[in-house]
Amino acid sequence: MSEVEILEYRPEPGEYAWTFGGVAPVRRVRPGTVLEVWTEDCFAGRVRSERDLVSEVCEFPFLNPQTGPFYVEGAEPGDTVAVHFVSIEPARDWAASTTVPLFGALTATHTTALLHEPLPEVVWMWRLDRANRTCRFEARNGSWAVDLPMDPMHGTLGVAPANLEVRSALVPDAFGGNMDTPELRAGVTCYLGVNVPGALLSLGDGHARQGEGETCGVAVECAMDTVIAVDLVKGAPCPWPRIESDTHLMTTGSARPLEDAFRIAQADMVGWLNQDFGLDVLDAYQLVSQAVEAPIANVVDTNYTSVAKLAKRWLPERDVFEATHRRLRSVADEYRSRQR
Amino acid sequence: MSEVEILEYRPEPGEYAWTFGGVAPVRRVRPGTVLEVWTEDCFAGRVRSERDLVSEVCEFPFLNPQTGPFYVEGAEPGDTVAVHFVSIEPARDWAASTTVPLFGALTATHTTALLHEPLPEVVWMWRLDRANRTCRFEARNGSWAVDLPMDPMHGTLGVAPANLEVRSALVPDAFGGNMDTPELRAGVTCYLGVNVPGALLSLGDGHARQGEGETCGVAVECAMDTVIAVDLVKGAPCPWPRIESDTHLMTTGSARPLEDAFRIAQADMVGWLNQDFGLDVLDAYQLVSQAVEAPIANVVDTNYTSVAKLAKRWLPERDVFEATHRRLRSVADEYRSRQR
Amino acid sequence: MSEVEILEYRPEPGEYAWTFGGVAPVRRVRPGTVLEVWTEDCFAGRVRSERDLVSEVCEFPFLNPQTGPFYVEGAEPGDTVAVHFVSIEPARDWAASTTVPLFGALTATHTTALLHEPLPEVVWMWRLDRANRTCRFEARNGSWAVDLPMDPMHGTLGVAPANLEVRSALVPDAFGGNMDTPELRAGVTCYLGVNVPGALLSLGDGHARQGEGETCGVAVECAMDTVIAVDLVKGAPCPWPRIESDTHLMTTGSARPLEDAFRIAQADMVGWLNQDFGLDVLDAYQLVSQAVEAPIANVVDTNYTSVAKLAKRWLPERDVFEATHRRLRSVADEYRSRQR
Amino acid sequence: MSEVEILEYRPEPGEYAWTFGGVAPVRRVRPGTVLEVWTEDCFAGRVRSERDLVSEVCEFPFLNPQTGPFYVEGAEPGDTVAVHFVSIEPARDWAASTTVPLFGALTATHTTALLHEPLPEVVWMWRLDRANRTCRFEARNGSWAVDLPMDPMHGTLGVAPANLEVRSALVPDAFGGNMDTPELRAGVTCYLGVNVPGALLSLGDGHARQGEGETCGVAVECAMDTVIAVDLVKGAPCPWPRIESDTHLMTTGSARPLEDAFRIAQADMVGWLNQDFGLDVLDAYQLVSQAVEAPIANVVDTNYTSVAKLAKRWLPERDVFEATHRRLRSVADEYRSRQR
Repeated sequence: MSEVEILEYRPEPGEYAWTFGGVAPVRRVRPGTVLEVWTEDCFAGRVRSERDLVSEVCEFPFLNPQTGPFYVEGAEPGDTVAVHFVSIEPARDWAASTTVPLFGALTATHTTALLHEPLPEVVWMWRLDRANRTCRFEARNGSWAVDLPMDPMHGTLGVAPANLEVRSALVPDAFGGNMDTPELRAGVTCYLGVNVPGALLSLGDGHARQGEGETCGVAVECAMDTVIAVDLVKGAPCPWPRIESDTHLMTTGSARPLEDAFRIAQADMVGWLNQDFGLDVLDAYQLVSQAVEAPIANVVDTNYTSVAKLAKRWLPERDVFEATHRRLRSVADEYRSRQR
Repeated sequence: MSEVEILEYRPEPGEYAWTFGGVAPVRRVRPGTVLEVWTEDCFAGRVRSERDLVSEVCEFPFLNPQTGPFYVEGAEPGDTVAVHFVSIEPARDWAASTTVPLFGALTATHTTALLHEPLPEVVWMWRLDRANRTCRFEARNGSWAVDLPMDPMHGTLGVAPANLEVRSALVPDAFGGNMDTPELRAGVTCYLGVNVPGALLSLGDGHARQGEGETCGVAVECAMDTVIAVDLVKGAPCPWPRIESDTHLMTTGSARPLEDAFRIAQADMVGWLNQDFGLDVLDAYQLVSQAVEAPIANVVDTNYTSVAKLAKRWLPERDVFEATHRRLRSVADEYRSRQR
Repeated sequence: MSEVEILEYRPEPGEYAWTFGGVAPVRRVRPGTVLEVWTEDCFAGRVRSERDLVSEVCEFPFLNPQTGPFYVEGAEPGDTVAVHFVSIEPARDWAASTTVPLFGALTATHTTALLHEPLPEVVWMWRLDRANRTCRFEARNGSWAVDLPMDPMHGTLGVAPANLEVRSALVPDAFGGNMDTPELRAGVTCYLGVNVPGALLSLGDGHARQGEGETCGVAVECAMDTVIAVDLVKGAPCPWPRIESDTHLMTTGSARPLEDAFRIAQADMVGWLNQDFGLDVLDAYQLVSQAVEAPIANVVDTNYTSVAKLAKRWLPERDVFEATHRRLRSVADEYRSRQR
Repeated sequence: MSEVEILEYRPEPGEYAWTFGGVAPVRRVRPGTVLEVWTEDCFAGRVRSERDLVSEVCEFPFLNPQTGPFYVEGAEPGDTVAVHFVSIEPARDWAASTTVPLFGALTATHTTALLHEPLPEVVWMWRLDRANRTCRFEARNGSWAVDLPMDPMHGTLGVAPANLEVRSALVPDAFGGNMDTPELRAGVTCYLGVNVPGALLSLGDGHARQGEGETCGVAVECAMDTVIAVDLVKGAPCPWPRIESDTHLMTTGSARPLEDAFRIAQADMVGWLNQDFGLDVLDAYQLVSQAVEAPIANVVDTNYTSVAKLAKRWLPERDVFEATHRRLRSVADEYRSRQR
């Protein structure tokens, strides 16, 4: 169809953003545009074999390169940008994971500061079978190998922060960022509250798959060919990132300790049911208490991220964010029909 | 089959246990026994209408009555008792939930001590349709009603604690107790490390269903007719409760802050893969990081509970706890065949 | 003076209590009694040289022996017992400290469960110069030695818990217990809410001195000759342990994470100013915010303990707990005059 | 003396910095310079009476105005800037404090997200008696008034952050910032690791006094006339802010939960004793455990701040940071002798 505007953007090595905020936009996009982008892996592509230790080949703070930022035309503080993931496809037939000294959930870190020596630094190269949709894990010390289902997602998606801040691309917070939730897969729409004119949207940190919590701090990291459809909901604030799939509504919270991340996500879900579905606050509290799923996203980043997930079929039939998810679903269908 | 020993136990009102430890056993059971028990709801059956406020009808510390404890013959410290849930069936056609002053994830509490007044105390009576396997939520303030799937489970299952302690039945910890995880449903086997001779196993706190996190602190609480098969694994310690289903291995951790509960469960899963499946510790760390699900159990009790859940099909084929789950599965089949 | 009743109690090796609650009283004491007791160190006296590693010479759960419990005549739930420390004197000329595997603030622990190996187990023997009131630290690995001021205190003081519980003597909570605050020194009065008839008071865990936080988990541990005066305030509840000195009021909170311990102590101080000093809640909040000291007690035990400390001279002149501190001060004076 | 270079800087209303990083320097200073500055209060001077509610008169994110940043000549990443507080004097005879909706330790907040309504917003105007060095608290609801000792300090002092970040002036972290510790008073030297060329030092948030923890989130806030002496230690990193007084060494940590802030500060103190005083790591751990004070700074900001404080007299006699504190003490003396 003629209505779908398509923009392709593949950054050159020097064109990544390393922060949310503080970076000039690489492109301007009109609401409704489909963006075909390429994202590099979180190591900036420098971990390519088992010998490539992060502490040796990577250079702080040049981790987690973001593709963008994109200036969304018309976006103003108080609006919400919607990002629908049309497709997320690994761009290579390998991915890498690793322990990183003083980073991860089961190790001393820079903030959980202890007197232990760091754990050993080990790299795992994962083989991706894009035809069969699998990722192969091979033990480094032993012979066990297993194919896990591929479940591509983006660990990082965000806009420029509020409060004049510029945050490292490693940070998840109210502006989105490095949330590392497996729920950010193809087919969902993510809503992000706008803090600065143009929103300044960027994304990166593709994972071929990830466990809930991202326990060692690093997923199955790979470059991605990703297609998103971007839209704008004027006059609708979104205090923390929300996600909508065909079947579920999701809210997120990013904070420490982890119970605060949980509280943010759950309270935002209660508030959402109250404001958009007409449920009394305490009725919403009760329904959420019995109906919600609470998949952990990450327990390793500067803030931990918790997701609250509720089936739409258990809620009054209402549109949220002006039915943007359904609309972007149509845009995605049109886009796909044109690609054939 | 003749091998299955069946013991029925239905406590009289004065026969509940309110603690783990510190209570004389109500029955002795031989390993392999099938127990048919009845458990009262967490309110001791006193919340029967919307007018029954916990603060008025319940009497601390007589909350969360436990059926038991059962003395498992031959159980000694260093062993593990296995409890297979054959069936968990609501014993009434209604269940109750409520807010409780200064209890829950989205309120000031006795430990998250703030200057706010408590939230209002409201009761929701849920109708259970046991034929259609649904629980009906009805808004108290408004007209919304919805049927959620029934998913019966026990919030509380445990043994006497270590260290000479006696703990309230409201507490989850290494001895099990009030973990409040929806994973404790029919078909799974829960492993609990033994701390005292006879283990002193008890259970209660049936939920017709529960959201992950049990956000308001109270699930869809109901009395249960429950059948468990009990077994003993000699000489096999189990530091924190573990759960096995036909398809998954699960570990649990209960602590505060929530990230420590997460760490306990994840570290125990890494250790389990290392000890019983022959994976190197760091290889196990990597596999868990990419493969684990991390459903939150509760973020409201004296300790918060986190679960780590791993698909067996992704692991080397090995028996754990001497194939007790498979054996108790058979016992359950025999029991069911006899019931017909 | 004739009014002071004095009771001496020195436990035999088999007479220690290892828990709060669950133990029969060793003596009955009338309110107003002065108790002369001896307390063993937290290692049950088994660490006597640098070669005595806790993991080898101590036997769980037989750690932190308590002297008591004492049945306080007339004490009922809802009352408060007051314990005034008349004197706390090291009973030996040495004390011991040590690292303990998987215990302490700067190490992986059983709940902050990580993949590190435990830190090395090292014992430090401290020499106590009771005449000069110093404790001598000597480096194990190197030649540095320094005399620190002796500042004797009890790490543990408590009553039987509420809710039918029995808790390890290693636990601090609302019933007192192993709070490990240096504020519990001679001259102060500690108030503890009564949960069971007779209160069942016990104490132990003498420290020749301790840093705030007890960072490695173990203080300068020594046996003590201690004199306390015990009193009872009828009909006055005390939700968390409070401490009164000649110059300060103190509240305590024990919980995890540490901010909850802080909140409990600060909220209890605000409530105390509101109830006993007539300040409006928000005025009390403001005054506390600008005037309180917040010395950390411990960040290592099963619950962390935070203290809020406010100078009496900044408050309206009022008696708290029926002027019990002043009264026990007089009892102490009488006792001392009799000793000469 | 002629050696002391003095620079006076009093910002115009439009010249404040609202962030650490991301702001062009207002002046360049040579190491050794004495800076006479004026800092506005955290409300940007807009709370001037009991009717001035923060939610009405203040405009996010224009809170906590900083004076600076100052470009310290020669400062490079890997160096440390030293800031000696020569004097901190309230610039007005009044100060303000207030509750702020959803901010503070004893209230629901944006991250400890609960379903309570915010606490009431109340302003307290404090009268400062600069001659008698007192601050007068007057109850808003009742007649209690009391003079507390004036103890002027700066809540905020920092440099530009690492990792390309720009942080709100409300944030405390490794770069310093809004630590809110009463230890930052006249007579101490604060060490801050340099992250960007010139360091970009700024300061603000004067408090006439503050309780430990800053419980309600707001201290006795006032504009300040402050004199600092700035120096540079080449080639000496400082991972977290450290403070030196004539008598004590102090380390700080800022993180959530509060135990992580504690761990950072304590581990940095252990490391400092190891590196600069020649103590073995475990010997340092032991000495710190028995000798440290741990005054809480704040439990309200985006990160909580904990301080570890150790008496110099208990350590081997060594200079730290090339005796910068002693040198700046001399500079301060020279400055004062010139002022007379």
